[in-house]
Amino acid sequence: MSLPPEFALIARHFRPLAGQGALDLADDAAVLAVPPGRHLVIAADAMVEGVHYLPDDPPDTIGRKLLRVNLSDLAAMGAVPLGYLMTTSFARGVTEDWIAGFVRGLAQDQAEFGLQVLGGDTTVTPGPTCLSLTILGTVAPGAALRRDGARAGDDVWVSGTIGDGALGLRVLRNGLRDDEAGHLAARYRLPQPRLALGQAIAGLAHAGMDVSDGLVQDLGHLCRAAGCGAEIAADALPLSPAARACFAADPALMSTILTGGDDYELLFTAAPAAAPAITAAADRVGTPVLRIGRMVAGPPAVLVRDAAGAAIDLRREGWSHF
Amino acid sequence: MSLPPEFALIARHFRPLAGQGALDLADDAAVLAVPPGRHLVIAADAMVEGVHYLPDDPPDTIGRKLLRVNLSDLAAMGAVPLGYLMTTSFARGVTEDWIAGFVRGLAQDQAEFGLQVLGGDTTVTPGPTCLSLTILGTVAPGAALRRDGARAGDDVWVSGTIGDGALGLRVLRNGLRDDEAGHLAARYRLPQPRLALGQAIAGLAHAGMDVSDGLVQDLGHLCRAAGCGAEIAADALPLSPAARACFAADPALMSTILTGGDDYELLFTAAPAAAPAITAAADRVGTPVLRIGRMVAGPPAVLVRDAAGAAIDLRREGWSHF
Repeated sequence: MSLPPEFALIARHFRPLAGQGALDLADDAAVLAVPPGRHLVIAADAMVEGVHYLPDDPPDTIGRKLLRVNLSDLAAMGAVPLGYLMTTSFARGVTEDWIAGFVRGLAQDQAEFGLQVLGGDTTVTPGPTCLSLTILGTVAPGAALRRDGARAGDDVWVSGTIGDGALGLRVLRNGLRDDEAGHLAARYRLPQPRLALGQAIAGLAHAGMDVSDGLVQDLGHLCRAAGCGAEIAADALPLSPAARACFAADPALMSTILTGGDDYELLFTAAPAAAPAITAAADRVGTPVLRIGRMVAGPPAVLVRDAAGAAIDLRREGWSHF
Repeated sequence: MSLPPEFALIARHFRPLAGQGALDLADDAAVLAVPPGRHLVIAADAMVEGVHYLPDDPPDTIGRKLLRVNLSDLAAMGAVPLGYLMTTSFARGVTEDWIAGFVRGLAQDQAEFGLQVLGGDTTVTPGPTCLSLTILGTVAPGAALRRDGARAGDDVWVSGTIGDGALGLRVLRNGLRDDEAGHLAARYRLPQPRLALGQAIAGLAHAGMDVSDGLVQDLGHLCRAAGCGAEIAADALPLSPAARACFAADPALMSTILTGGDDYELLFTAAPAAAPAITAAADRVGTPVLRIGRMVAGPPAVLVRDAAGAAIDLRREGWSHF
């Protein structure tokens, strides 16, 4: 009695990814002990072919991106990764080569970020591939970085560079010119979850989140949670050399940089007095951070000023599925 | 600064479902403390429109089925529900009425089974709707019911009735005649997770799982995990009056009953000496159980005998996506 095709495929490709708690993916559920003295942190993000990634993106980077956008949610909470579950609804006709590539990417990032698959479900859809991943992490009780602690007067910080992912999508879809190394397209396909930074600033920052739907929209979430506003300076934004070149060639791309999303950088606020400690923490983990503005008293709105101090009018603030 | 449409929709429909650990669904992740002295049990199942449910199924039963097929995985482990995360990739053009119905079903079953949503992600797909749910439960350390403990000589048991779900799909899709109450279609749309039974037999059964892909295929999983075979008697299967009527009208439907899946009943094995304790435990929680065969020494294969003792030849053993 050989395995039915679906289970043979799971055994061949997904079982080698499995962690100890997963019971070799042979049971209905995984059983695990959360380390004593730690709270569980858990989040889930979906990715749809043609919406969150491009149909001809390499399958290994799709697997890695799926894991990384979820790891970015852990980073935003200051959590340490524990494991993940994944459900896949593959487009009918998916090849075993494609699945092998997808799993190879997952395996590579499991090793890089120190976590393992705990379970999931493998299905097929007549439509485009839909992927869903639930990530588990842990945090010391009370130590999680939340969205709702920002105060008027706080500095607004971001990590890394902003706009690369959104510009990278334009490179891949609209023929925008990338730099020679393909930096922007690579940043779209392979975000960098800022786990070490999130853990390092969790006790220093007042509020934090990751930038996934666009800097302005996501900063708006922090404003609404805190009941205050924010002002940021467009010329203070950390831009990669590739993004800077795009912006120089077409200043209208500032709107894409501010609202395009797919950054997966950390956005956080802290008291001005904490700035030296934050800079030191960021240096220690090797992640660049930059102050781009401040939280201000008033209604929950985000004002972006250009180099002359004038408000930039944005047609939209960020990505919405509806 | 009003909420972007996607977040307004989440606030309107999904936030009322949220539990305490979910931080009002306003953060990147939920933080929760697993009760002391308990292990976490976690599983994930996906449902695709047109594959796992029919496009014109009522949205509230789709929400409830999504939660119930996952609760059934907890039941199979003998676990107690804690909460869930859900990602939705709704077909483009989904109406807010449909989403409201879907959420109404989730709310109804949250109340019935005592759990709350902890987080998730709401997206849109150009294809059919893909839903994914990750369920969390807890179990006392070492008490989880596993698949790999069956032994030759064990009785094979199932709960409830077998075949209703698969026949219900034929009622809805192929015009098979249901009974007047629509029992089979209702069983397809709304499985009954056997949580109380799973908890009651966890210390008595040697091995267990839930029947989702077809009785014969799923019993094959128990055989492979144990390294032995199984023999069951087709005329010992617990059939509902509606299923019995279908089978009487067309004996070829036995194949659908044995291999069709969508049962979400518990399948478990136990020593013959445990039979009185199992019957008593099942009586206590009010869930019918029946012995349908036994595990036998030999290669991992499932033999189904008809009333005359002859082996029934099944074209397939159960559902496979590939």
